[in-house]
Amino acid sequence: MDQNKSNADRVDELNYLLENKKISELSDLLSRTNPIDIVECFEDLSAEEALVLFRLLKKEDAAEVFAQLNQTDKEKLQEVLNDDEFRDLLEDLNFDDMIDTLEEMPATMVQQILKSSDSQTRDLVNEYLQFPEDSAGSLMTTEFVEVSADMTVEETLALLEDVGKDKVTVYTCYVTDPTHKLLGYVSLRMVVTREPDTKLSELLYEDVIYVYTTDDQEDVAHTFQKYGFTALPVVDNTNRLVGIITVDDIIWIIEQEATEDFQRMAGTTPEEEDYSRMSAWSLAKNRIPWLMFLMISGAFTSTILKRYEDVIQTVIALNMFIPMLTGSGGNAGSQASTLVIRAMATHDIQPSDWVKVVLKEVTVGLICGAALAIVAFLKCYFFDKVAINVALVVSLTILAIVVIAKAIGSLLPIVAEKFGADPAIMASPLITTIVDSLGLIVYFNIAQAILPGLGI
Amino acid sequence: MDQNKSNADRVDELNYLLENKKISELSDLLSRTNPIDIVECFEDLSAEEALVLFRLLKKEDAAEVFAQLNQTDKEKLQEVLNDDEFRDLLEDLNFDDMIDTLEEMPATMVQQILKSSDSQTRDLVNEYLQFPEDSAGSLMTTEFVEVSADMTVEETLALLEDVGKDKVTVYTCYVTDPTHKLLGYVSLRMVVTREPDTKLSELLYEDVIYVYTTDDQEDVAHTFQKYGFTALPVVDNTNRLVGIITVDDIIWIIEQEATEDFQRMAGTTPEEEDYSRMSAWSLAKNRIPWLMFLMISGAFTSTILKRYEDVIQTVIALNMFIPMLTGSGGNAGSQASTLVIRAMATHDIQPSDWVKVVLKEVTVGLICGAALAIVAFLKCYFFDKVAINVALVVSLTILAIVVIAKAIGSLLPIVAEKFGADPAIMASPLITTIVDSLGLIVYFNIAQAILPGLGI
Repeated sequence: MDQNKSNADRVDELNYLLENKKISELSDLLSRTNPIDIVECFEDLSAEEALVLFRLLKKEDAAEVFAQLNQTDKEKLQEVLNDDEFRDLLEDLNFDDMIDTLEEMPATMVQQILKSSDSQTRDLVNEYLQFPEDSAGSLMTTEFVEVSADMTVEETLALLEDVGKDKVTVYTCYVTDPTHKLLGYVSLRMVVTREPDTKLSELLYEDVIYVYTTDDQEDVAHTFQKYGFTALPVVDNTNRLVGIITVDDIIWIIEQEATEDFQRMAGTTPEEEDYSRMSAWSLAKNRIPWLMFLMISGAFTSTILKRYEDVIQTVIALNMFIPMLTGSGGNAGSQASTLVIRAMATHDIQPSDWVKVVLKEVTVGLICGAALAIVAFLKCYFFDKVAINVALVVSLTILAIVVIAKAIGSLLPIVAEKFGADPAIMASPLITTIVDSLGLIVYFNIAQAILPGLGI
Repeated sequence: MDQNKSNADRVDELNYLLENKKISELSDLLSRTNPIDIVECFEDLSAEEALVLFRLLKKEDAAEVFAQLNQTDKEKLQEVLNDDEFRDLLEDLNFDDMIDTLEEMPATMVQQILKSSDSQTRDLVNEYLQFPEDSAGSLMTTEFVEVSADMTVEETLALLEDVGKDKVTVYTCYVTDPTHKLLGYVSLRMVVTREPDTKLSELLYEDVIYVYTTDDQEDVAHTFQKYGFTALPVVDNTNRLVGIITVDDIIWIIEQEATEDFQRMAGTTPEEEDYSRMSAWSLAKNRIPWLMFLMISGAFTSTILKRYEDVIQTVIALNMFIPMLTGSGGNAGSQASTLVIRAMATHDIQPSDWVKVVLKEVTVGLICGAALAIVAFLKCYFFDKVAINVALVVSLTILAIVVIAKAIGSLLPIVAEKFGADPAIMASPLITTIVDSLGLIVYFNIAQAILPGLGI
């Protein structure tokens, strides 16, 4: 039995055997290792070493390992495999993995490879290559078990024995009519517990949940999550069954969508590539546009400060609290926007809830703002030893800024969603920038209202 | 066939039938509706209405619906169900759902319920109630299929026919020795495609990946994700098989862990309750500690500004760029910290990579900082029309701040992880606060070095 903790050791052992060309031991160890763990070995290999390792794999393991390799390692292998080997490998891949591989290749090379395929495969591949990147169509695979309602349990088991090993799942068999329209499904669990001559029509579950090829992957993930399925059928716009999606692909999507939101919310262009594989140059390229936009918008604060230069010159004490005030506003706004963005992403709230959400955040702002205002007053008066009315200005401003920040932080993501933009762009950096400017205006207006001699 | 789009309509229809007491139509529609969709109907019902609806459900649907209800709705039902009904319901629940339900109940009530159970169940329940909340033990369920290696395919299928319907999955059968030590598994896929007299020992897959009851749920989720499993066996510290975890629970955990990171990174205490269900008061309670801490740390900027009051008085133009400078620093730092925190959460980078990561971020900082510095210089000189050496001070400061922010933003989350703290606390709000103070010090030092008459 394999100890999970020793996976890293096993990778080390494989690398050691490869370096020392102990081929038969290597082959033996490979056959006892989960293909997913073999993938890790490819990371630091030269193309020639990768080829040696790859040729030692069992046919079915080779396909699984290749499917899981990252793009760089795939290309490395592709270059050293000869044409026949590569074509055989493509045929062994699951259909969705083959499409993923072809998608990354130059179109001319794809046509070259497809030349030797039969026209049916060629048409199918070309059809699949056209699904938009984040659609259910681009996620699905064609290796599902299709049965008709008049088959018996015995015939179904015989079919599974025959074709089962080439299917991604045999646990759900999809029942279609002769035009491939989806009628429902039978689960293998139901099949194995019935008499051999039972007709599938008796076991058929008709209230099947399905998705369309054009559905967005985020919605597909949500359906999986809601119902706890391990596979979902995909139909085209005439309700013909064209593929299935399995839960293992969905887990990655849930993680990937969260990662994209994190990236967008931090003010960087979302990127599918892992952080560790990105160069400093491409990281910078993804970050400069937002930093630049925010700096230029943030420069609006300079104009405000210039306008109120007289106020600052008159009561210089006001100046020293500016970063604390804008900082607290930014933090309060980030809290609101982050929670609202996430609640929309997990379908907890809808844009139509906006009144309820904004009112709730304003209430939260009043509570948080009051707490901060009291502490800020005490700190300004007793610690910084400013005049009591300056302390009052600072603490009133903090209350106002926190409330405004909560309102803006909760409203803007909902507005973005309403207008079809990604709410995640209305996150911390943008909210902070907006609140900085508004906060300063509020501050100086409160100061002019309360402090004597500031020209109101 | 059920159109997904019409789920909301179906909920409306169920509510309409319930209000108008059309019981037989209601019962009919319920039998054709996925239990998960029935759950939604309970949200706005009174306890009495909920009871009517609940009693109309088929036994197996009732258990599934109850397991999916939120805590408030569960308690509502619990109060109106009589004791016998509730005890029957608990027995129908999957073991993990039963434990979840008992966990939320007062200990005296749990003991009351357990009194009538046999001592074996009682011991098991008490054992399960003791697993820490986020451990594999608290996620697992006991409804798995356990077989011995000397059973035949025929015997296995007969066993499944017998006990299959009470198990959460029959697609993986776990092979154990007489002391329940896990030896491996056979998949139903293998079983149904073999001759009836084949021994399971011939089909046994021994290199099974498993987890321990004490493993953290985040690590369990990572194992599922890595290998694409739909179920994983859980063993105790003597390698006895004690439960299994299924992928549908894992999908929620991946989402929940991401949500917790979002909450922590926004500077709020993580909360399992949905945003929409939380009161303004509890939201405020989760946010005030961080806001207060950040405000007090941020107040350090007041001390710095006070110290450099002379500099500001001498060159008042310097003052108006402060929010833009600290804002850009905060944004640059947030980008770095968010990406690094997320890369650690997805196991893309390890604390041991810290040198590589920080060097990369410093390089990114130099590139981004240089781009911003050029634009800032042009903006200050041509638009704000300040003296050329003031524009130079501003643009040099922005370069320095961006580099420092990237270094701190990438280093602190790694340091937190290294010391066993959650890296997510080293996110935007804290980084911004630190960078604000450092940025001001850098700014005034550069100003004193470049501008004449500032007292160096």
